[in-house]
Amino acid sequence: MTNPTAAILVIGDEILSGRTREANAYHLAGQLVRVGIDLVEMRVVPDDHRAIVEGLHALSAAVDHVFTSGGIGPTHDDITADAVAAAFEVSIDVREDARAMVAAAVGDPRRLTDDHLRMARIPEGATLIANGISGVPGFSIGNVHVMAGVPSIFVSMLDALLPSLSRGEAVVSREVRFEVGEGRIASPLRELAAQHPELSLGSYPFADGHIYGTNIVVRSTDPAALDMAVAQLEGLRDSLG
Amino acid sequence: MTNPTAAILVIGDEILSGRTREANAYHLAGQLVRVGIDLVEMRVVPDDHRAIVEGLHALSAAVDHVFTSGGIGPTHDDITADAVAAAFEVSIDVREDARAMVAAAVGDPRRLTDDHLRMARIPEGATLIANGISGVPGFSIGNVHVMAGVPSIFVSMLDALLPSLSRGEAVVSREVRFEVGEGRIASPLRELAAQHPELSLGSYPFADGHIYGTNIVVRSTDPAALDMAVAQLEGLRDSLG
Repeated sequence: MTNPTAAILVIGDEILSGRTREANAYHLAGQLVRVGIDLVEMRVVPDDHRAIVEGLHALSAAVDHVFTSGGIGPTHDDITADAVAAAFEVSIDVREDARAMVAAAVGDPRRLTDDHLRMARIPEGATLIANGISGVPGFSIGNVHVMAGVPSIFVSMLDALLPSLSRGEAVVSREVRFEVGEGRIASPLRELAAQHPELSLGSYPFADGHIYGTNIVVRSTDPAALDMAVAQLEGLRDSLG
Repeated sequence: MTNPTAAILVIGDEILSGRTREANAYHLAGQLVRVGIDLVEMRVVPDDHRAIVEGLHALSAAVDHVFTSGGIGPTHDDITADAVAAAFEVSIDVREDARAMVAAAVGDPRRLTDDHLRMARIPEGATLIANGISGVPGFSIGNVHVMAGVPSIFVSMLDALLPSLSRGEAVVSREVRFEVGEGRIASPLRELAAQHPELSLGSYPFADGHIYGTNIVVRSTDPAALDMAVAQLEGLRDSLG
């Protein structure tokens, strides 16, 4: 069995200008591992129609699920919904169910402006994604799931969306810490990786005070294979003294 | 004058699996703003030869500078240098100046292994990038700058590299905080953006305790235009009472 694959397209000048540190891709990565969906690409593009459409075309053709983050608010720089409609070549307009959700979010109907209603514009054929924070929905169309950039809202929308997606086998990981540099263990590690082609074996050097060490991370959907590899790694570590 | 453009290609399963939060793209974004190089894309791909080569081809054709992060250590999962050589269709081998730097980094020449020497494999025609932390170099080839994934080393290599790149006009930014939601200011903001096509005007909703507000960020290479826009925004804020 092969796990479903995914990518995230983050839309936002504020990330590329260094003003804001991206948070949603990191959150998504942690959530997808648990449900057995393999995240294979993260991409950040500016608030630019062409860049968004190109990113959507490339990623939606390459993976099973594309998650987007950002650009679905009421202001002039919120152009994601229109770009998604353009990418799927469908029309976009205010939809009644989304309009009701936006109106409820604004509270006083007399204060509902055309700008608020921009948030109720949904591409034809999309399904809404609930937002437990501000009430204004995201949406899914084809294999693209369009969510907010505000981290608390992204988290809420992902919680609403994930149970509806097909799961794969959850990937579990274990870490073995070596207090020697990568160069000293690269060779036995290479042998171990060759013995276990079904495992993902990553080597991550670290500096901790005056110790230059290496964390070896083993990842697999098979807990027994994982246990065996960890035992071999621990044996290697002990043999280094 | 148009600023040079840039993209970063981060290589690492550990980011996509949610184990590690990406740090180098965020650092790069902040540094490039200061020297007038416009970062237009961030991309994270796995430790996979084809994914790296495809990312390099796409990004190096689209922007003036591609920075890469990760995958240049001595272990089996460090495949970036070979992928870069493949992308540029050049050979790769141990180079004497890089070998001397790696040997100095390892210290004792009797402990220098074939795995260490993997870090001295440099694509034909590349220039080395100094590493003030561990001594093992990165390299530039064409418009691609290949750097380490360990954040302290990435920072050191970028410090060594940046002064050699052509600068553009630094982008300065100012922020005006509104204690009202985006919906209430979207309309005047849209007018302001239309009046100042030379400015980048971003709107970022926030929640701060019980206040739902909006930060407006104005960015420009022209300080006078920036001052004028900020004065207009402050006038708008005061008029909302």
